[in-house]
Amino acid sequence: MPEKRYLFTPGPTPVPPQVLAVLAEPVIHHRGPDFRRIYARCLDRLRDVCRTQHDVLLFTSPGSGAMESAVANLLGPGERALVLSAGNFGERWAELARAYGADVAHEALEWGAVPDADDLRRALDRSGPVKVVFLTHSETSTGVVVDLQSLAAVAKERGALVAVDAVSSVGAVPLETDAWGLDVVATGSQKALMTPPGLAFCAVSPAALAAARVGGGPRYVYDWERTRAAQEALDAPFTPAVSLVGALDVALGLILDEGLEAAFARHARLGRACREGIKAMGLELFSPDDERSAVVTAVRAPDGVDIGEVLLTLRDRHGVQLIGGQGRLKGRIFRIGHIGWFDVFDITTALAAVELVLSEAGADIERGAAVMRALEAYAAPVPV
Amino acid sequence: MPEKRYLFTPGPTPVPPQVLAVLAEPVIHHRGPDFRRIYARCLDRLRDVCRTQHDVLLFTSPGSGAMESAVANLLGPGERALVLSAGNFGERWAELARAYGADVAHEALEWGAVPDADDLRRALDRSGPVKVVFLTHSETSTGVVVDLQSLAAVAKERGALVAVDAVSSVGAVPLETDAWGLDVVATGSQKALMTPPGLAFCAVSPAALAAARVGGGPRYVYDWERTRAAQEALDAPFTPAVSLVGALDVALGLILDEGLEAAFARHARLGRACREGIKAMGLELFSPDDERSAVVTAVRAPDGVDIGEVLLTLRDRHGVQLIGGQGRLKGRIFRIGHIGWFDVFDITTALAAVELVLSEAGADIERGAAVMRALEAYAAPVPV
Repeated sequence: MPEKRYLFTPGPTPVPPQVLAVLAEPVIHHRGPDFRRIYARCLDRLRDVCRTQHDVLLFTSPGSGAMESAVANLLGPGERALVLSAGNFGERWAELARAYGADVAHEALEWGAVPDADDLRRALDRSGPVKVVFLTHSETSTGVVVDLQSLAAVAKERGALVAVDAVSSVGAVPLETDAWGLDVVATGSQKALMTPPGLAFCAVSPAALAAARVGGGPRYVYDWERTRAAQEALDAPFTPAVSLVGALDVALGLILDEGLEAAFARHARLGRACREGIKAMGLELFSPDDERSAVVTAVRAPDGVDIGEVLLTLRDRHGVQLIGGQGRLKGRIFRIGHIGWFDVFDITTALAAVELVLSEAGADIERGAAVMRALEAYAAPVPV
Repeated sequence: MPEKRYLFTPGPTPVPPQVLAVLAEPVIHHRGPDFRRIYARCLDRLRDVCRTQHDVLLFTSPGSGAMESAVANLLGPGERALVLSAGNFGERWAELARAYGADVAHEALEWGAVPDADDLRRALDRSGPVKVVFLTHSETSTGVVVDLQSLAAVAKERGALVAVDAVSSVGAVPLETDAWGLDVVATGSQKALMTPPGLAFCAVSPAALAAARVGGGPRYVYDWERTRAAQEALDAPFTPAVSLVGALDVALGLILDEGLEAAFARHARLGRACREGIKAMGLELFSPDDERSAVVTAVRAPDGVDIGEVLLTLRDRHGVQLIGGQGRLKGRIFRIGHIGWFDVFDITTALAAVELVLSEAGADIERGAAVMRALEAYAAPVPV
C-alpha cells in the first residue's frame, strides 16, 4: 500500500488541516449559544459565497438531497418541468422530477455537449410553458461548465423558475444567484467549499419560497419553509451535523479571506494548467478547452490502454485517486478534479503520476513535458 | 463564560476522544478501498447493535430523516396507518404520515403516559386494519421507554408492519429487531451511538423492503431499495459523510467491545442513579421511576422557580447543558440525558450542579444528599 494519499477527485475534495482540526472538537448542543454563533456566521457566509441577499437553506444531507428539495418543494404531481441535460448529473434532475410525478420535458443532449441559450430556447419552444427549468452549472461527469447567466435569462424570459445544480461550481467558478435571477442554487459541502461531505445547501429566491408555500410534493426534512423559519430563529429544525457546520464555518472563512474573485481566478489557472499539461503529454481533452471549465478536467483514454486498470494502479500503487467516466463514459475517459483546496503542485503531481502510469501501461505519450507546461500555464494571469 | 462544558442532553451526546480524533483524519474517497473497508465494517456493526440479520440502511441525515424514510417508502396517499403517541416524537410520526397524504389514525395519549399493549389493542379496534403501526421506543420528550416487545406483538397479531422510532434507545436499552419482529427501526448517530449528529439508520425487514418495492410515496435520497442495492455492492448511492462514517465505525467498535448487554446494564444503573439522586433532593420525577427508563430522566420543575432561568444559569454560568421541556411541557420539566459515553460522575456532576443552582434560585430542596445517594444506587447490580 502507498504511504501517502492524493485526493484528486471532484468530490470529496481535500480538506485543509485547520478545517479538519475543528471536527475533532467536542460536540456542542445545537440549541446553545456556542453553536448558534457558528450557525449564524455560517449562514451569512453561505449567502456571501452564493452571492445572494436571500436565504441559503442548510441541510444535513448529500448534495443530491438539496436537488431533491428543489423538486419536492416546487413540483406537484403532473406539473410541467423542463430538464436540459448533457451528462449524468443533468439526467439526475429528470430522474428526481419523475420520482415526484412531475410531467417532465427532458432535453437530453449528448454527454459532453455544452448546452447554450439556443438549446434552451428550442427546448422551451417544444415543451411549451413549464413551471421550473432545471439546469446544471458544472456537469461533473463531463467537465463542462455552462454559461449559466445566458441560460437563466432564457428561462426567466419564458416565466419559469430556474433551479440550478451548482454542487461542484459554487466557490470555484463565478455564480451570481441574485444578479442572474437564479431561483434555486443547490450545492454541497464537499467540493469547492473544502469541507467533508454531509452538508448540502439550497439558495432560494423569494419567488421559489412563495411557490413552495402553496405547492410541491410530500416532504418533511427537506421542507423549505420549515427550514427557513427555523434558520430565521437560529434554531435548526432537526439536529444538524454540528461538527460539520463548525468545519464549514472555518472553511468558508478561508474562502472569503482569499476572496471569491481570487478563488475563481485560482481555479481558472488550475484548470488551464491541467489542460495544458494533458495536451503536452499528447492526450486529448474530453472537456472543453476553455477557461470556464475550471472544475474538473476530463481526458479521453488513450488507445490501447485499459483506463480502468490505469486508475487502479494510480490509486493502489501510488495513492493517487483520480476517477473514471460514469455510465456511458466508463472506460472512455478519466477525470482530474481541481476544486477547493488545490494548488499548482497538486496539478503537477496528478500529471506526473498519470504520465508515469500511462507510459508504463504502453500508451504512446510524450514524457517530461507536462509538468513544466502546467507550471507555465498556471503562471499566466487570468484575463479580466 | 465557564471554562468547561458538560453536555448532559439526550442528543447530541458526548463523543469519546478516540472517536473525535478520527474526524480530523484526511477525507478519503467514498469509492476507494480505504472507505469501503470502513463502510462494510460499519454496516456489520450496525446490524449487531440493532440485533438484526437483515439490512440496516445508512443515510447522511438527521434522525428524523430515517423516520421520514419509513413513511415515504411504506405509505402511499390514502393508505391507512396508526400512530400511538405519548409525547413530542410520537406525534412526529403522525405529522410525517400526514405530510405524505396517508390516512392516519392517531391515538395521542397524554404526554408522559406509558403506552402499553392494551392501549394499542384498543386503538387498533377503533382504527380497523392498518398497513403500518408507528411506535416510539424511547420518547425523549418525556423520558418514557415502552415495553416495545409486547406492543410489537399486538401490531403483528393484526397483520400490520411495525415501524419504531428508536433514535434515542438503540445501544442504551434492549431492542431486538429480529426477535421482536420489528419491520423498521429508525435511529441516529448522535445518541447512544456516541458519534456526532449527521448519520441516521433504518433497520428494515424483508417484509418492509418488499412493501417499499411496490408502494410508498415519492422519494429519491431516502429510497430504501436504491440504498440497499448500493450497500450490497459497498457503493454508497450518494457521497456519504465519510468522516462521520469513520467516527461511527470506531464508536460502534467501542460499544461492541464493552458488549451490548454491559451497555444496557450501565445505562440502567445510570438511570437509577439519576432518579435516586433527584428524589434525594426532594424533587419529583416526571418520567417513570422504573429501570427501563434509562435514556433520559425528566424531572418536574419545583414550585416557585423559573426553570428556564435555572437552565440558562446552569448553562451560561456553569457550562452544564441540560434541557427543558418541549411543547406543552416547556417550563414544567427539565431533562437530564444519560445515553452513550456517560459514567456515574457525569450523573453526580449533573446532580451537584442542579442542586447548587436550584437552591440559589430559592427552591426548597434537600442539600448534600443527592450525590451520595446516586453513587449508592449506581453500585447496586442490575437484576438479570
